[in-house]
Amino acid sequence: MCELLGMSANVPTDITFSMAGFLQRGGATGPHRDGWGVAFYEDAGYREFKDPHPSIASPVARLILDYPIKSRIVISHIRQANVGQVNLGNTHPFSRELWGRHWCYAHNGQLAGFREALPLSYFQPTGQTDSEWAFCWLLGEIRKAFPHPPEQPEVLQALIHRLAEQLRTLGVFNLLLADGEQLYAYCSTKLAHITRCAPFGPAILKDTELEIDFAACTTPQDVVSVLATEPLTTNEEWHIMQPGELVVFQDGHCRARLLSTAG
Amino acid sequence: MCELLGMSANVPTDITFSMAGFLQRGGATGPHRDGWGVAFYEDAGYREFKDPHPSIASPVARLILDYPIKSRIVISHIRQANVGQVNLGNTHPFSRELWGRHWCYAHNGQLAGFREALPLSYFQPTGQTDSEWAFCWLLGEIRKAFPHPPEQPEVLQALIHRLAEQLRTLGVFNLLLADGEQLYAYCSTKLAHITRCAPFGPAILKDTELEIDFAACTTPQDVVSVLATEPLTTNEEWHIMQPGELVVFQDGHCRARLLSTAG
Repeated sequence: MCELLGMSANVPTDITFSMAGFLQRGGATGPHRDGWGVAFYEDAGYREFKDPHPSIASPVARLILDYPIKSRIVISHIRQANVGQVNLGNTHPFSRELWGRHWCYAHNGQLAGFREALPLSYFQPTGQTDSEWAFCWLLGEIRKAFPHPPEQPEVLQALIHRLAEQLRTLGVFNLLLADGEQLYAYCSTKLAHITRCAPFGPAILKDTELEIDFAACTTPQDVVSVLATEPLTTNEEWHIMQPGELVVFQDGHCRARLLSTAG
Repeated sequence: MCELLGMSANVPTDITFSMAGFLQRGGATGPHRDGWGVAFYEDAGYREFKDPHPSIASPVARLILDYPIKSRIVISHIRQANVGQVNLGNTHPFSRELWGRHWCYAHNGQLAGFREALPLSYFQPTGQTDSEWAFCWLLGEIRKAFPHPPEQPEVLQALIHRLAEQLRTLGVFNLLLADGEQLYAYCSTKLAHITRCAPFGPAILKDTELEIDFAACTTPQDVVSVLATEPLTTNEEWHIMQPGELVVFQDGHCRARLLSTAG
Protein backbone atom coordinates (compact mmCIF):
# COMPACT_ATOMS: atom_id res chain seq x y z
CA MET A 1 0.00 0.00 0.00
CA CYS A 2 0.96 3.61 -0.36
CA GLU A 3 0.31 6.92 1.32
CA LEU A 4 -1.53 9.92 -0.06
CA LEU A 5 -1.29 13.61 0.81
CA GLY A 6 -3.43 16.41 -0.64
CA MET A 7 -4.04 20.10 -0.05
CA SER A 8 -6.57 22.66 -1.24
CA ALA A 9 -6.28 26.32 -0.18
CA ASN A 10 -7.85 29.69 -0.99
CA VAL A 11 -4.45 31.43 -1.11
CA PRO A 12 -1.10 30.14 -2.41
CA THR A 13 0.09 28.08 0.53
CA ASP A 14 3.32 26.34 1.36
CA ILE A 15 2.80 22.69 2.38
CA THR A 16 6.30 22.21 3.84
CA PHE A 17 5.00 21.45 7.35
CA SER A 18 2.74 18.59 6.27
CA MET A 19 5.34 17.31 3.81
CA ALA A 20 7.96 17.17 6.56
CA GLY A 21 5.86 14.62 8.43
CA PHE A 22 4.52 12.84 5.36
CA LEU A 23 7.93 12.21 3.77
CA GLN A 24 9.08 10.46 6.97
CA ARG A 25 6.67 7.67 6.04
CA GLY A 26 8.85 6.97 2.99
CA GLY A 27 11.39 4.84 4.81
CA ALA A 28 11.48 6.18 8.40
CA THR A 29 8.11 5.95 10.21
CA GLY A 30 6.53 4.03 7.31
CA PRO A 31 7.65 1.24 4.96
CA HIS A 32 6.97 3.10 1.69
CA ARG A 33 10.44 3.03 0.16
CA ASP A 34 9.56 2.60 -3.51
CA GLY A 35 9.57 6.17 -4.76
CA TRP A 36 7.55 9.28 -4.17
CA GLY A 37 6.24 12.31 -6.03
CA VAL A 38 4.45 15.59 -5.57
CA ALA A 39 2.49 17.85 -7.93
CA PHE A 40 1.88 21.57 -7.41
CA TYR A 41 -0.70 23.78 -9.11
CA GLU A 42 0.74 27.30 -9.09
CA ASP A 43 -1.01 30.23 -10.82
CA ALA A 44 -1.84 28.93 -14.26
CA GLY A 45 0.93 26.36 -14.10
CA TYR A 46 1.55 22.83 -12.96
CA ARG A 47 4.75 21.03 -12.03
CA GLU A 48 5.69 17.66 -10.63
CA PHE A 49 8.73 16.46 -8.75
CA LYS A 50 9.30 12.71 -8.68
CA ASP A 51 12.01 10.41 -7.44
CA PRO A 52 12.11 6.61 -7.61
CA HIS A 53 14.13 6.55 -4.35
CA PRO A 54 12.85 6.52 -0.72
CA SER A 55 11.66 10.00 0.23
CA ILE A 56 13.79 10.17 3.37
CA ALA A 57 16.95 9.73 1.24
CA SER A 58 15.83 11.76 -1.79
CA PRO A 59 17.71 14.92 -2.86
CA VAL A 60 14.50 16.02 -4.58
CA ALA A 61 12.62 15.71 -1.28
CA ARG A 62 15.25 17.84 0.41
CA LEU A 63 14.75 20.48 -2.29
CA ILE A 64 10.98 20.51 -1.67
CA LEU A 65 11.47 20.96 2.07
CA ASP A 66 14.10 23.71 1.59
CA TYR A 67 12.35 25.57 -1.25
CA PRO A 68 8.78 26.23 -0.12
CA ILE A 69 6.54 26.29 -3.17
CA LYS A 70 3.28 28.16 -2.66
CA SER A 71 0.34 26.61 -4.41
CA ARG A 72 -3.42 26.23 -4.14
CA ILE A 73 -3.60 22.50 -4.83
CA VAL A 74 -1.03 19.83 -3.99
CA ILE A 75 -1.12 16.06 -4.51
CA SER A 76 1.65 13.84 -3.17
CA HIS A 77 2.20 10.09 -2.97
CA ILE A 78 4.77 7.77 -1.46
CA ARG A 79 4.86 4.30 -2.86
CA GLN A 80 5.09 0.78 -1.55
CA ALA A 81 5.02 -1.19 -4.76
CA ASN A 82 2.62 -4.04 -5.44
CA VAL A 83 1.85 -3.95 -9.19
CA GLY A 84 4.73 -2.76 -11.41
CA GLN A 85 8.47 -2.49 -10.77
CA VAL A 86 10.12 0.20 -8.69
CA ASN A 87 11.06 2.75 -11.33
CA LEU A 88 10.30 6.30 -12.36
CA GLY A 89 7.66 5.23 -14.88
CA ASN A 90 5.59 3.69 -12.10
CA THR A 91 5.96 6.59 -9.68
CA HIS A 92 2.85 8.65 -8.81
CA PRO A 93 1.35 11.18 -9.29
CA PHE A 94 0.33 10.70 -12.91
CA SER A 95 -0.98 13.48 -15.12
CA ARG A 96 -2.78 13.98 -18.41
CA GLU A 97 -4.28 16.98 -20.18
CA LEU A 98 -8.06 17.12 -20.65
CA TRP A 99 -10.04 20.24 -21.72
CA GLY A 100 -6.79 22.25 -21.67
CA ARG A 101 -6.30 21.48 -17.98
CA HIS A 102 -3.67 19.40 -16.24
CA TRP A 103 -5.35 16.53 -14.41
CA CYS A 104 -3.30 15.00 -11.63
CA TYR A 105 -3.97 11.64 -9.98
CA ALA A 106 -2.59 9.50 -7.18
CA HIS A 107 -3.94 6.17 -5.94
CA ASN A 108 -3.57 4.08 -2.84
CA GLY A 109 -4.66 0.45 -3.09
CA GLN A 110 -4.69 -2.27 -5.69
CA LEU A 111 -7.12 -3.45 -8.33
CA ALA A 112 -7.71 -7.02 -9.59
CA GLY A 113 -8.46 -7.79 -13.24
CA PHE A 114 -8.07 -4.15 -14.20
CA ARG A 115 -7.01 -4.79 -17.80
CA GLU A 116 -10.19 -6.71 -18.58
CA ALA A 117 -12.55 -4.61 -16.50
CA LEU A 118 -11.35 -1.20 -17.64
CA PRO A 119 -11.18 -0.83 -21.44
CA LEU A 120 -9.09 2.19 -22.43
CA SER A 121 -10.06 4.87 -24.92
CA TYR A 122 -8.34 8.27 -25.25
CA PHE A 123 -5.50 7.82 -22.77
CA GLN A 124 -2.87 5.07 -22.53
CA PRO A 125 -0.58 4.22 -19.61
CA THR A 126 3.15 4.75 -20.04
CA GLY A 127 4.07 2.48 -17.09
CA GLN A 128 2.92 -0.89 -15.74
CA THR A 129 0.81 -0.06 -12.69
CA ASP A 130 -2.86 -0.81 -12.09
CA SER A 131 -3.02 2.77 -10.76
CA GLU A 132 -2.04 4.50 -14.00
CA TRP A 133 -4.27 2.17 -16.02
CA ALA A 134 -7.23 3.09 -13.79
CA PHE A 135 -6.42 6.79 -14.22
CA CYS A 136 -6.35 6.47 -18.02
CA TRP A 137 -9.69 4.64 -17.93
CA LEU A 138 -11.25 7.16 -15.52
CA LEU A 139 -10.18 10.19 -17.53
CA GLY A 140 -11.21 8.51 -20.79
CA GLU A 141 -14.69 7.87 -19.37
CA ILE A 142 -14.93 11.52 -18.31
CA ARG A 143 -13.92 12.64 -21.79
CA LYS A 144 -16.39 10.26 -23.43
CA ALA A 145 -19.20 11.63 -21.26
CA PHE A 146 -18.11 15.25 -21.61
CA PRO A 147 -16.11 16.16 -24.73
CA HIS A 148 -16.27 19.68 -23.27
CA PRO A 149 -16.37 20.56 -19.58
CA PRO A 150 -19.95 20.42 -18.21
CA GLU A 151 -21.37 23.71 -16.95
CA GLN A 152 -22.76 22.21 -13.74
CA PRO A 153 -20.03 20.90 -11.41
CA GLU A 154 -22.56 18.51 -9.85
CA VAL A 155 -22.82 16.33 -12.95
CA LEU A 156 -19.04 15.90 -13.09
CA GLN A 157 -18.89 15.15 -9.37
CA ALA A 158 -21.62 12.52 -9.77
CA LEU A 159 -19.77 10.89 -12.67
CA ILE A 160 -16.45 10.79 -10.81
CA HIS A 161 -18.21 9.27 -7.79
CA ARG A 162 -19.88 6.62 -9.95
CA LEU A 163 -16.57 5.73 -11.66
CA ALA A 164 -14.74 5.57 -8.32
CA GLU A 165 -17.45 3.29 -6.92
CA GLN A 166 -16.96 1.05 -9.96
CA LEU A 167 -13.18 0.97 -9.37
CA ARG A 168 -13.74 0.08 -5.71
CA THR A 169 -15.45 -3.15 -6.79
CA LEU A 170 -12.04 -4.28 -8.18
CA GLY A 171 -10.17 -3.91 -4.88
CA VAL A 172 -8.94 -0.98 -2.86
CA PHE A 173 -9.23 2.46 -4.43
CA ASN A 174 -8.35 5.49 -2.34
CA LEU A 175 -8.00 8.42 -4.71
CA LEU A 176 -6.78 11.99 -4.99
CA LEU A 177 -7.63 13.71 -8.29
CA ALA A 178 -7.37 17.37 -9.30
CA ASP A 179 -7.98 19.53 -12.36
CA GLY A 180 -6.41 22.77 -11.15
CA GLU A 181 -9.61 24.04 -9.51
CA GLN A 182 -11.22 21.09 -7.76
CA LEU A 183 -9.54 18.49 -5.60
CA TYR A 184 -11.53 15.23 -5.50
CA ALA A 185 -10.85 12.69 -2.74
CA TYR A 186 -12.49 9.28 -2.71
CA CYS A 187 -12.21 6.87 0.19
CA SER A 188 -12.27 3.14 -0.34
CA THR A 189 -10.68 2.10 2.95
CA LYS A 190 -8.59 4.89 4.46
CA LEU A 191 -8.49 8.66 4.01
CA ALA A 192 -8.78 11.57 6.43
CA HIS A 193 -9.02 15.34 6.10
CA ILE A 194 -8.95 18.51 8.13
CA THR A 195 -9.86 22.12 7.31
CA ARG A 196 -7.88 24.84 9.06
CA CYS A 197 -9.22 28.41 9.28
CA ALA A 198 -9.21 31.29 11.76
CA PRO A 199 -8.71 31.18 14.66
CA PHE A 200 -5.56 29.20 13.77
CA GLY A 201 -3.70 27.34 16.49
CA PRO A 202 -0.65 25.16 16.91
CA ALA A 203 -0.23 21.76 15.26
CA ILE A 204 2.11 18.94 16.28
CA LEU A 205 3.32 16.40 13.70
CA LYS A 206 2.97 12.71 14.44
CA ASP A 207 5.89 11.45 12.33
CA THR A 208 8.70 13.81 13.29
CA GLU A 209 9.45 16.25 16.07
CA LEU A 210 7.97 19.39 14.63
CA GLU A 211 5.39 21.85 15.87
CA ILE A 212 4.03 24.91 14.08
CA ASP A 213 1.83 27.77 15.16
CA PHE A 214 -0.32 28.44 12.10
CA ALA A 215 -1.51 31.71 13.69
CA ALA A 216 1.97 33.12 13.05
CA CYS A 217 2.01 32.39 9.31
CA THR A 218 -1.57 32.90 8.17
CA THR A 219 -4.13 35.68 7.76
CA PRO A 220 -7.69 35.48 9.16
CA GLN A 221 -9.02 34.92 5.62
CA ASP A 222 -6.92 31.82 4.89
CA VAL A 223 -8.68 28.48 4.52
CA VAL A 224 -6.53 25.39 4.00
CA SER A 225 -7.69 21.77 3.84
CA VAL A 226 -5.28 18.87 4.07
CA LEU A 227 -6.01 15.24 3.22
CA ALA A 228 -3.91 12.24 4.17
CA THR A 229 -4.15 8.48 4.37
CA GLU A 230 -3.80 8.83 8.13
CA PRO A 231 -3.94 12.01 10.24
CA LEU A 232 -0.59 13.82 10.21
CA THR A 233 -0.98 15.67 13.54
CA THR A 234 -1.66 14.49 17.07
CA ASN A 235 -3.47 17.49 18.58
CA GLU A 236 -6.16 18.19 15.98
CA GLU A 237 -9.38 16.45 15.08
CA TRP A 238 -9.31 14.97 11.58
CA HIS A 239 -12.42 13.83 9.75
CA ILE A 240 -12.08 10.12 8.99
CA MET A 241 -13.82 9.40 5.69
CA GLN A 242 -16.27 6.55 5.15
CA PRO A 243 -15.84 3.84 2.49
CA GLY A 244 -17.54 5.03 -0.70
CA GLU A 245 -17.39 8.72 0.25
CA LEU A 246 -16.27 11.37 -2.24
CA VAL A 247 -15.41 14.87 -1.06
CA VAL A 248 -14.71 17.81 -3.37
CA PHE A 249 -12.57 20.73 -2.22
CA GLN A 250 -12.21 24.07 -3.91
CA ASP A 251 -10.32 27.09 -2.55
CA GLY A 252 -9.78 25.23 0.72
CA HIS A 253 -13.48 24.62 1.36
CA CYS A 254 -15.34 21.33 1.15
CA ARG A 255 -17.87 22.04 -1.62
CA ALA A 256 -19.56 18.66 -1.94
CA ARG A 257 -19.81 15.32 -0.18
CA LEU A 258 -21.25 12.29 -1.96
CA LEU A 259 -21.91 9.09 -0.03
CA SER A 260 -22.01 5.54 -1.29
CA THR A 261 -25.34 4.16 -2.37
CA ALA A 262 -23.87 0.64 -2.31
CA GLY A 263 -25.03 -1.56 0.54
CA MET B 1 14.08 34.18 -28.30
CA CYS B 2 14.99 31.21 -26.19
CA GLU B 3 17.73 28.63 -25.99
CA LEU B 4 17.43 24.89 -26.55
CA LEU B 5 19.53 22.00 -25.27
CA GLY B 6 19.11 18.34 -26.14
CA MET B 7 20.93 15.06 -25.62
CA SER B 8 20.67 11.54 -27.01
CA ALA B 9 22.93 8.76 -25.71
CA ASN B 10 23.34 5.01 -26.00
CA VAL B 11 23.93 4.62 -22.25
CA PRO B 12 22.35 6.51 -19.33
CA THR B 13 24.43 9.69 -19.32
CA ASP B 14 24.68 12.62 -16.97
CA ILE B 15 24.33 15.96 -18.77
CA THR B 16 25.64 18.09 -15.87
CA PHE B 17 28.62 19.41 -17.86
CA SER B 18 26.53 20.78 -20.73
CA MET B 19 23.84 22.04 -18.32
CA ALA B 20 26.47 23.95 -16.34
CA GLY B 21 27.24 26.08 -19.41
CA PHE B 22 23.70 26.19 -20.76
CA LEU B 23 22.10 27.42 -17.53
CA GLN B 24 24.51 30.40 -17.48
CA ARG B 25 22.60 31.70 -20.49
CA GLY B 26 19.55 32.12 -18.24
CA GLY B 27 20.59 35.47 -16.80
CA ALA B 28 24.40 35.47 -16.83
CA THR B 29 25.93 35.05 -20.32
CA GLY B 30 22.50 35.26 -21.98
CA PRO B 31 19.35 37.36 -21.46
CA HIS B 32 16.92 34.44 -21.02
CA ARG B 33 15.55 35.23 -17.58
CA ASP B 34 11.95 34.12 -17.99
CA GLY B 35 12.03 30.59 -16.68
CA TRP B 36 13.62 27.34 -17.65
CA GLY B 37 12.89 23.62 -17.62
CA VAL B 38 14.43 20.23 -18.31
CA ALA B 39 12.97 16.81 -19.08
CA PHE B 40 14.74 13.49 -18.53
CA TYR B 41 13.87 10.11 -19.98
CA GLU B 42 15.16 7.51 -17.54
CA ASP B 43 14.53 3.77 -17.96
CA ALA B 44 10.81 3.52 -18.64
CA GLY B 45 10.13 6.82 -16.90
CA TYR B 46 9.99 10.50 -17.61
CA ARG B 47 10.32 13.50 -15.35
CA GLU B 48 10.47 17.24 -15.74
CA PHE B 49 11.90 19.97 -13.57
CA LYS B 50 10.66 23.49 -14.23
CA ASP B 51 11.09 26.86 -12.61
CA PRO B 52 9.60 30.19 -13.72
CA HIS B 53 12.69 32.00 -12.34
CA PRO B 54 16.04 32.72 -14.09
CA SER B 55 18.11 29.54 -14.22
CA ILE B 56 21.19 31.14 -12.66
CA ALA B 57 19.13 31.96 -9.51
CA SER B 58 16.97 28.82 -9.46
CA PRO B 59 17.15 26.37 -6.54
CA VAL B 60 15.80 23.71 -8.92
CA ALA B 61 18.74 24.38 -11.28
CA ARG B 62 21.14 23.97 -8.38
CA LEU B 63 19.54 20.60 -7.59
CA ILE B 64 20.01 19.45 -11.20
CA LEU B 65 23.68 20.42 -11.16
CA ASP B 66 24.28 18.78 -7.75
CA TYR B 67 22.24 15.61 -8.37
CA PRO B 68 23.41 14.14 -11.67
CA ILE B 69 20.50 12.32 -13.29
CA LYS B 70 21.55 9.71 -15.81
CA SER B 71 19.28 9.48 -18.81
CA ARG B 72 19.30 8.59 -22.48
CA ILE B 73 17.33 11.58 -23.74
CA VAL B 74 17.26 15.10 -22.31
CA ILE B 75 15.43 18.21 -23.52
CA SER B 76 15.98 21.56 -21.85
CA HIS B 77 14.88 25.12 -22.56
CA ILE B 78 15.56 28.55 -21.14
CA ARG B 79 13.02 31.18 -21.94
CA GLN B 80 13.04 34.78 -23.04
CA ALA B 81 9.32 35.47 -23.27
CA ASN B 82 7.63 36.89 -26.34
CA VAL B 83 4.12 35.36 -26.46
CA GLY B 84 2.55 34.61 -23.06
CA GLN B 85 3.33 35.90 -19.57
CA VAL B 86 6.26 34.77 -17.48
CA ASN B 87 4.73 32.03 -15.38
CA LEU B 88 4.99 28.32 -14.80
CA GLY B 89 2.17 27.51 -17.23
CA ASN B 90 4.17 29.03 -20.09
CA THR B 91 7.48 27.37 -19.16
CA HIS B 92 8.92 24.75 -21.53
CA PRO B 93 9.32 21.86 -22.06
CA PHE B 94 5.74 20.76 -22.63
CA SER B 95 4.60 17.14 -22.64
CA ARG B 96 1.65 15.03 -23.69
CA GLU B 97 1.01 11.29 -23.87
CA LEU B 98 0.51 9.68 -27.28
CA TRP B 99 0.56 5.90 -27.97
CA GLY B 100 1.38 5.28 -24.31
CA ARG B 101 4.59 7.32 -24.64
CA HIS B 102 5.57 10.62 -23.10
CA TRP B 103 6.22 13.16 -25.87
CA CYS B 104 8.33 16.10 -24.85
CA TYR B 105 8.67 19.35 -26.80
CA ALA B 106 10.58 22.62 -26.60
CA HIS B 107 10.54 25.46 -29.12
CA ASN B 108 12.72 28.45 -29.90
CA GLY B 109 11.18 31.17 -32.04
CA GLN B 110 7.78 32.70 -32.56
CA LEU B 111 4.82 32.06 -34.82
CA ALA B 112 2.37 34.57 -36.31
CA GLY B 113 -1.33 33.81 -36.74
CA PHE B 114 -0.95 30.44 -35.07
CA ARG B 115 -4.52 30.23 -33.73
CA GLU B 116 -6.02 30.53 -37.20
CA ALA B 117 -3.39 28.53 -39.06
CA LEU B 118 -3.21 25.58 -36.66
CA PRO B 119 -6.64 24.11 -35.81
CA LEU B 120 -6.45 21.87 -32.74
CA SER B 121 -7.86 18.36 -32.43
CA TYR B 122 -6.90 15.88 -29.69
CA PHE B 123 -4.68 18.08 -27.54
CA GLN B 124 -5.35 21.50 -26.00
CA PRO B 125 -2.85 23.98 -24.56
CA THR B 126 -2.96 24.69 -20.83
CA GLY B 127 -0.97 27.96 -21.13
CA GLN B 128 -0.92 30.94 -23.49
CA THR B 129 2.17 30.45 -25.65
CA ASP B 130 2.36 30.03 -29.41
CA SER B 131 4.85 27.25 -28.62
CA GLU B 132 2.45 25.02 -26.67
CA TRP B 133 -0.32 25.65 -29.21
CA ALA B 134 2.00 24.50 -32.00
CA PHE B 135 2.93 21.39 -29.99
CA CYS B 136 -0.73 20.49 -29.49
CA TRP B 137 -1.39 20.94 -33.20
CA LEU B 138 1.71 18.96 -34.21
CA LEU B 139 0.92 16.02 -31.94
CA GLY B 140 -2.75 16.10 -32.94
CA GLU B 141 -1.74 15.88 -36.61
CA ILE B 142 0.53 12.93 -35.84
CA ARG B 143 -2.31 11.19 -34.02
CA LYS B 144 -4.77 11.87 -36.83
CA ALA B 145 -2.33 10.39 -39.35
CA PHE B 146 -1.33 7.47 -37.12
CA PRO B 147 -3.88 6.37 -34.49
CA HIS B 148 -1.27 3.68 -33.73
CA PRO B 149 2.50 4.05 -34.11
CA PRO B 150 3.61 3.35 -37.70
CA GLU B 151 5.92 0.38 -38.18
CA GLN B 152 8.35 2.23 -40.42
CA PRO B 153 10.15 5.10 -38.64
CA GLU B 154 10.69 6.82 -42.01
CA VAL B 155 7.02 7.63 -42.48
CA LEU B 156 6.83 9.30 -39.07
CA GLN B 157 10.06 11.22 -39.73
CA ALA B 158 8.68 12.44 -43.05
CA LEU B 159 5.43 13.58 -41.41
CA ILE B 160 7.26 15.44 -38.63
CA HIS B 161 9.49 17.12 -41.21
CA ARG B 162 6.49 18.18 -43.29
CA LEU B 163 4.66 19.57 -40.22
CA ALA B 164 7.78 21.44 -39.06
CA GLU B 165 8.21 22.94 -42.54
CA GLN B 166 4.60 24.11 -42.35
CA LEU B 167 5.24 25.70 -38.93
CA ARG B 168 8.31 27.46 -40.27
CA THR B 169 6.12 29.36 -42.75
CA LEU B 170 4.52 31.11 -39.71
CA GLY B 171 7.79 32.50 -38.34
CA VAL B 172 10.76 31.00 -36.53
CA PHE B 173 10.48 27.36 -35.48
CA ASN B 174 13.55 25.68 -34.01
CA LEU B 175 12.37 22.45 -32.38
CA LEU B 176 13.39 19.65 -30.06
CA LEU B 177 10.88 16.79 -29.80
CA ALA B 178 11.23 13.33 -28.24
CA ASP B 179 9.11 10.25 -27.67
CA GLY B 180 11.44 8.34 -25.35
CA GLU B 181 13.32 6.61 -28.19
CA GLN B 182 13.87 9.21 -30.89
CA LEU B 183 15.01 12.78 -30.47
CA TYR B 184 13.92 14.97 -33.39
CA ALA B 185 15.62 18.33 -33.97
CA TYR B 186 14.41 20.75 -36.60
CA CYS B 187 16.28 23.91 -37.54
CA SER B 188 14.47 26.98 -38.70
CA THR B 189 17.22 29.53 -38.05
CA LYS B 190 19.68 28.29 -35.43
CA LEU B 191 20.57 24.87 -34.06
CA ALA B 192 23.86 22.98 -33.76
CA HIS B 193 24.87 19.47 -32.74
CA ILE B 194 27.89 17.35 -31.95
CA THR B 195 28.38 13.61 -31.54
CA ARG B 196 31.03 12.45 -29.08
CA CYS B 197 32.42 8.93 -29.21
CA ALA B 198 35.77 7.16 -28.68
CA PRO B 199 38.49 8.37 -28.67
CA PHE B 200 37.05 10.91 -26.22
CA GLY B 201 38.98 14.09 -25.47
CA PRO B 202 38.70 17.24 -23.40
CA ALA B 203 35.96 19.84 -23.82
CA ILE B 204 35.99 23.46 -22.69
CA LEU B 205 32.73 25.29 -22.00
CA LYS B 206 32.13 28.66 -23.63
CA ASP B 207 29.78 30.11 -20.98
CA THR B 208 31.59 29.33 -17.74
CA GLU B 209 35.07 28.35 -16.68
CA LEU B 210 34.79 24.59 -16.84
CA GLU B 211 36.75 21.92 -18.65
CA ILE B 212 36.10 18.18 -18.67
CA ASP B 213 38.05 15.23 -19.99
CA PHE B 214 35.36 12.91 -21.32
CA ALA B 215 37.96 10.11 -21.62
CA ALA B 216 37.96 9.88 -17.83
CA CYS B 217 34.20 9.35 -17.45
CA THR B 218 33.20 7.27 -20.47
CA THR B 219 33.74 3.81 -21.92
CA PRO B 220 34.86 3.19 -25.54
CA GLN B 221 31.31 2.08 -26.41
CA ASP B 222 29.60 5.32 -25.33
CA VAL B 223 28.03 7.52 -27.99
CA VAL B 224 26.53 10.82 -26.89
CA SER B 225 25.07 13.54 -29.09
CA VAL B 226 24.33 17.02 -27.80
CA LEU B 227 22.24 19.69 -29.52
CA ALA B 228 22.11 23.38 -28.65
CA THR B 229 20.97 26.66 -30.12
CA GLU B 230 24.64 27.68 -30.24
CA PRO B 231 27.73 25.50 -29.66
CA LEU B 232 28.44 25.07 -25.96
CA THR B 233 32.17 24.38 -26.22
CA THR B 234 35.05 26.31 -27.76
CA ASN B 235 37.46 23.52 -28.72
CA GLU B 236 35.20 21.12 -30.62
CA GLU B 237 33.66 21.21 -34.06
CA TRP B 238 29.87 21.45 -33.94
CA HIS B 239 27.67 20.77 -36.95
CA ILE B 240 25.66 23.91 -37.70
CA MET B 241 22.27 22.87 -39.06
CA GLN B 242 20.68 24.35 -42.19
CA PRO B 243 17.25 26.03 -42.26
CA GLY B 244 14.64 23.37 -42.99
CA GLU B 245 16.84 20.47 -41.81
CA LEU B 246 15.47 17.74 -39.55
CA VAL B 247 17.84 15.34 -37.79
CA VAL B 248 16.73 12.26 -35.86
CA PHE B 249 18.88 10.83 -33.09
CA GLN B 250 18.49 7.46 -31.43
CA ASP B 251 20.89 5.91 -28.91
CA GLY B 252 23.30 8.79 -29.48
CA HIS B 253 23.57 8.22 -33.24
CA CYS B 254 22.18 10.38 -36.00
CA ARG B 255 19.76 7.98 -37.73
CA ALA B 256 18.23 10.28 -40.32
CA ARG B 257 18.68 13.68 -41.89
CA LEU B 258 15.91 15.27 -43.96
CA LEU B 259 16.57 18.47 -45.87
CA SER B 260 14.14 21.14 -46.91
CA THR B 261 12.53 20.83 -50.31
CA ALA B 262 11.41 24.46 -50.10
CA GLY B 263 13.28 26.89 -52.35
